[in-house]
Amino acid sequence: MALEIKQVEKARTRIAKFVHNTPVLTSSILNQWLGHEIYFKAENFQKIGAFKVRGACNTLAWLKERGQSPNHIVANSSGNHAQAVAFAAKRFGLSATIFMPEYSSQVKIQATKSYGAEVVLSKTRDITDEKVREAAQKEGTYWIPPYNHEQVVYGQGTAAYEALSDVSEVDAVFAPCGGGGLLSGTLIAARGLYPKTEVHGVEPLLANDAAQSLQTGKIQRLSGIPDTLADGAMTMAVGDITFEYLKQLDGFHEVSEEKMKYWTQWLTHLLKCRIEPTSAMTMGGVCQWLKGVSGRKKVLVILSGGNLDQQTTNKIWAEDHLGNPPLDLL
Amino acid sequence: MALEIKQVEKARTRIAKFVHNTPVLTSSILNQWLGHEIYFKAENFQKIGAFKVRGACNTLAWLKERGQSPNHIVANSSGNHAQAVAFAAKRFGLSATIFMPEYSSQVKIQATKSYGAEVVLSKTRDITDEKVREAAQKEGTYWIPPYNHEQVVYGQGTAAYEALSDVSEVDAVFAPCGGGGLLSGTLIAARGLYPKTEVHGVEPLLANDAAQSLQTGKIQRLSGIPDTLADGAMTMAVGDITFEYLKQLDGFHEVSEEKMKYWTQWLTHLLKCRIEPTSAMTMGGVCQWLKGVSGRKKVLVILSGGNLDQQTTNKIWAEDHLGNPPLDLL
Repeated sequence: MALEIKQVEKARTRIAKFVHNTPVLTSSILNQWLGHEIYFKAENFQKIGAFKVRGACNTLAWLKERGQSPNHIVANSSGNHAQAVAFAAKRFGLSATIFMPEYSSQVKIQATKSYGAEVVLSKTRDITDEKVREAAQKEGTYWIPPYNHEQVVYGQGTAAYEALSDVSEVDAVFAPCGGGGLLSGTLIAARGLYPKTEVHGVEPLLANDAAQSLQTGKIQRLSGIPDTLADGAMTMAVGDITFEYLKQLDGFHEVSEEKMKYWTQWLTHLLKCRIEPTSAMTMGGVCQWLKGVSGRKKVLVILSGGNLDQQTTNKIWAEDHLGNPPLDLL
Repeated sequence: MALEIKQVEKARTRIAKFVHNTPVLTSSILNQWLGHEIYFKAENFQKIGAFKVRGACNTLAWLKERGQSPNHIVANSSGNHAQAVAFAAKRFGLSATIFMPEYSSQVKIQATKSYGAEVVLSKTRDITDEKVREAAQKEGTYWIPPYNHEQVVYGQGTAAYEALSDVSEVDAVFAPCGGGGLLSGTLIAARGLYPKTEVHGVEPLLANDAAQSLQTGKIQRLSGIPDTLADGAMTMAVGDITFEYLKQLDGFHEVSEEKMKYWTQWLTHLLKCRIEPTSAMTMGGVCQWLKGVSGRKKVLVILSGGNLDQQTTNKIWAEDHLGNPPLDLL
């Protein structure tokens, strides 16, 4: 699959007035401890609290540009994509119906509704998927998928594009992998701007379908819903479009739940931000990589979002990891 | 006590190169829900994670300006003041000894040490206080107190000064009250810039010494260490200098632990920030005030800091408040 940086640049122009150019954060104590420079692109400060709004806005702006604006938008999601599509539809003056499983967090259902979307709850994810397929059949209705769509990928790539424009060349960029949309977009942006910069993906060990897919060269599907705190990386399988991008990565890392909790506590503490475990786990991958390289490195980490419910927060903070600073991890 | 805005302006010039001009944050959903405009000055993004560094840096810069630079700095604190003085001393190239009770959080002891200060631990707060008094006797040694010092007050006032310069006139400014340094500085800044802006203080119900002092017209001391989550407002009594300022406030509010947890969860969620309960409780006071006024109001809240340990975080997130949005609080 060709890496078309021009498409990310077009996306960036399209969505500029709808999304934040989020800040890049650093922690001088963390850098002192690790002996490397780590830059964090803070998409937790993005509209709706996650990068997802980039892909959703780009898709709607792209349709509009081509004179194909739909009358109605639909999407299925239990998470940040639901809020992103609701937000984007409102900004483009379109009505939206979001199909969500009943077990989605109240906070996310609430937020999706406050952006003006109709929310339809179903018992299971399968019923949700069936309903959205049905709804998408209606004339004038457009279904924005969460990752397996070129314009969604280009939109998500604008986060890394902005960060690299701010920070300039780095040795490596790390992003979490769910369905692979953010990671694919990050790859396109990084390769286009700095071809020597490595691009790495990070996944929960308990939801390692992408790692398995890359190892076997064929898309692998998880056998059951994984018991990971990284709800943004619980996707059952990557898509055929995103998989073609993921094959071009320089590295891929799997991170335990324990390390995920550790880094969620520490990044929250050091950066003073609300950070999803899906985002924080990326530091587990960074440390695995840093162990095998020599010299002081410059690393960019894409923090994907900051939407956590009380139950997840509680699990993350059950034990104290702040008593054990990241001094000798490398 | 005269409110000398010029002193805050001088402090601002003195400390500009040592501290961040922190951002002012808003939440569009919160404003939609409450029907008012709330602006948050995010001192959790300040150096050392709290406003305290402003007062410490101003005091050292003021001494230097007068040709009275000491050789050595001492301070006593279990909290943010310890880190602030350690940070400031390092920036001015001075050695520092910080006296802390053993029960201080490991995270704060660690951070104080990483700024290069010597940390001396003692069993009780009383022993700590005795030791700092002794150490301060030595020639060339200067003791920076946590709040009861004009230059500390002027330094803390720079936070509100910056925020009001960004936001322009508001109907009211709210700040938390521990020893009263931040609140006194906020009063001076607000009165100087916008004399019609009301200034309000907020205190934990369980540590309401300032409220009692204001009611009785005499400084009241808590009878024992209060069992509040707001560790930044656990101070046993305000100082004679800060009390003279506090008497000129437009309002003072006491907030329950339950409301404190509620607002810590909600501000963390909406602003995507790490926020101390001492800071978040301020919204309890804002809501008390908003209930009694009419029309849409513009309010500035000073978020004092974002340093929490695991134990406090755990207590805050034990129960779910995110299921209950701040829709009908007013």
